[in-house]
Amino acid sequence: MNDKAKPELQNTTFLDACARREVEYTPIWIMRQAGRYLPSYQEVRSRVDFQTLCRTPDLVAEVSVQPVEQLGVDAAIIFSDILVLPEAMGMELTMVENRGPVFPAPVRNAADFDRLHAATPSELQFVTDGIARTKKALAGRVPLIGFCGSPWTLFTYMVEGHTSRNFSVAKELMFREPELTHRILGTLADSAGAYLAAQVAAGADAVQIFDSWGGVLSPPAYREFSLAYLERAINVFNRAAPLILFSKGAHHALSALSQSGADVVGVDWTHDLGSVRRAVGAKVAVQGNMDPTTLFAPPEVIREEARRILGEYGTAPGHIFNLGHGILPETDPEHAKALVSFVHEESRRFHAVEGGKER
Amino acid sequence: MNDKAKPELQNTTFLDACARREVEYTPIWIMRQAGRYLPSYQEVRSRVDFQTLCRTPDLVAEVSVQPVEQLGVDAAIIFSDILVLPEAMGMELTMVENRGPVFPAPVRNAADFDRLHAATPSELQFVTDGIARTKKALAGRVPLIGFCGSPWTLFTYMVEGHTSRNFSVAKELMFREPELTHRILGTLADSAGAYLAAQVAAGADAVQIFDSWGGVLSPPAYREFSLAYLERAINVFNRAAPLILFSKGAHHALSALSQSGADVVGVDWTHDLGSVRRAVGAKVAVQGNMDPTTLFAPPEVIREEARRILGEYGTAPGHIFNLGHGILPETDPEHAKALVSFVHEESRRFHAVEGGKER
Repeated sequence: MNDKAKPELQNTTFLDACARREVEYTPIWIMRQAGRYLPSYQEVRSRVDFQTLCRTPDLVAEVSVQPVEQLGVDAAIIFSDILVLPEAMGMELTMVENRGPVFPAPVRNAADFDRLHAATPSELQFVTDGIARTKKALAGRVPLIGFCGSPWTLFTYMVEGHTSRNFSVAKELMFREPELTHRILGTLADSAGAYLAAQVAAGADAVQIFDSWGGVLSPPAYREFSLAYLERAINVFNRAAPLILFSKGAHHALSALSQSGADVVGVDWTHDLGSVRRAVGAKVAVQGNMDPTTLFAPPEVIREEARRILGEYGTAPGHIFNLGHGILPETDPEHAKALVSFVHEESRRFHAVEGGKER
Repeated sequence: MNDKAKPELQNTTFLDACARREVEYTPIWIMRQAGRYLPSYQEVRSRVDFQTLCRTPDLVAEVSVQPVEQLGVDAAIIFSDILVLPEAMGMELTMVENRGPVFPAPVRNAADFDRLHAATPSELQFVTDGIARTKKALAGRVPLIGFCGSPWTLFTYMVEGHTSRNFSVAKELMFREPELTHRILGTLADSAGAYLAAQVAAGADAVQIFDSWGGVLSPPAYREFSLAYLERAINVFNRAAPLILFSKGAHHALSALSQSGADVVGVDWTHDLGSVRRAVGAKVAVQGNMDPTTLFAPPEVIREEARRILGEYGTAPGHIFNLGHGILPETDPEHAKALVSFVHEESRRFHAVEGGKER
């Protein structure tokens, strides 16, 4: 990476923190910040369904920019869904009322998988077009983050067919047919890495991998079926831009994640950020980690929690504030906005140490 | 505790392991071992509904003994449900098709809570009667475990009204009304401690607290709203028998849990048991921790996983083998039976060190 963040950007705090450079305040963005809790997003959704929204670059740009304008976050993230990748590989995806996205024909054996193909850039052009439009709409105000799901996480959806509580179908396939599982995960890792690189080529300034379900595995299964393919995807991506790796629940793997090739390790709210910083060492930045339900609390509690998390991380460079998981649909947007202000305000004292002595 | 397990028991390996005494092989029992995966349990359930079963001591004894006879486990656990305690406190509980137990009138404010009362022993006599009948039916073959839910876990059900994905209602009350939350948790802790003691008085040889949802809290919230009330319940229980504390997902609190007054700390499958043993030190025994979905794997994979977990724990005394969460309803009982045999077989070499030198 360059020693200085892209000069055309007016706010480089997010990219500076990714690279563990000094910043004046701790940057913040919020997972799922472009989404259902915002009335302006719901207004767009009242006109088009979720899948049409994902596939319409102008609307993608509209909803991706909303939280930048309304909350004052330090980065935008492209509005999309992790399941567009398996869809581009040939899986039919339908939205079922009160159930979310469903693959009616899940992958349960080699024949199911052999009917799919590696995703080509043209099949995901609606995403890269959306990125180009969003970059234009942002006009350099803040950087734009691209993203994808981790190979293991995509595998669970492709095999289960939908979200799951115990992941028993996906894990049964993993235990019974490890070779097929490795073959699927390998294809997903290569596709995910190339897909992230295409997002950067289209204008994304950074990317995040959502390993939402890596934490449901035992440590050895995690290393074999999630971590190995995170590393493979990161390798294919080949450091095209700063990369954030968010592996929810993988509390046992912090040190390994810090050596995965990621620039930033994202953690959920069950971690003390001071312990995380010690576990990952000086190799990577850290992103997180407020419990999303904290935004249901009164503003003074939100401020106190923000202060606690900033204090736990301390004065070392390389903290990106975020929730520990996606913002919940029932959240009051005013509370999200207050959080952004509090973090900007409260964090200045952690970045104002004379001569950097305490760092 | 006495230096030797109750002499009237024919198999004391479980109680010996709880007290970190030497054993010939690692004892095993399985969370939810009396339950839906067993055809003999389903046969009983075809005659009575879940709530009637819980309230009929003869049937409780029948299903509690089934896994001892069919799997060869080293302890029985009383068949019951954690929600009998809030029910005894005055909450109406109904079973809703495809949704499980529901409190139609959840606790959302002080007035809701003030309508409840502390549970009295007579309101839970169906449980203690069930324990007495089960002890008689067991005839000393193995010890019997009593149990209850943790104050925080019961609180989430009482406030949400049912199982939850984000616990947003319970956490919102915690953030908005911490004093009321503490009052509810205090009552639950006192009731839970007394309830466990009553189970021991009725014949239970050990007890387990299921802190199923402690792991959804941040570390400081966990200490304030879960751990503090686990300690209070344990204090009320006053070491009436060996106590196992299973706090799923509380990876950040292992050392604190080992100092909570519990004799055994139970952990889920996201932990390396060697690390757990080092974190808890020589103070407590450790229970766990196979991923329940492993039982969907072929027997040779189950054996390999059992061997791995035994090896991770090593030769120190005080390991009780278990799954890292309840056995899943889709499990083949033959696989559960195979696991019990494998653990009994494979563990002998970890307990055969000459003169205990390696311990």
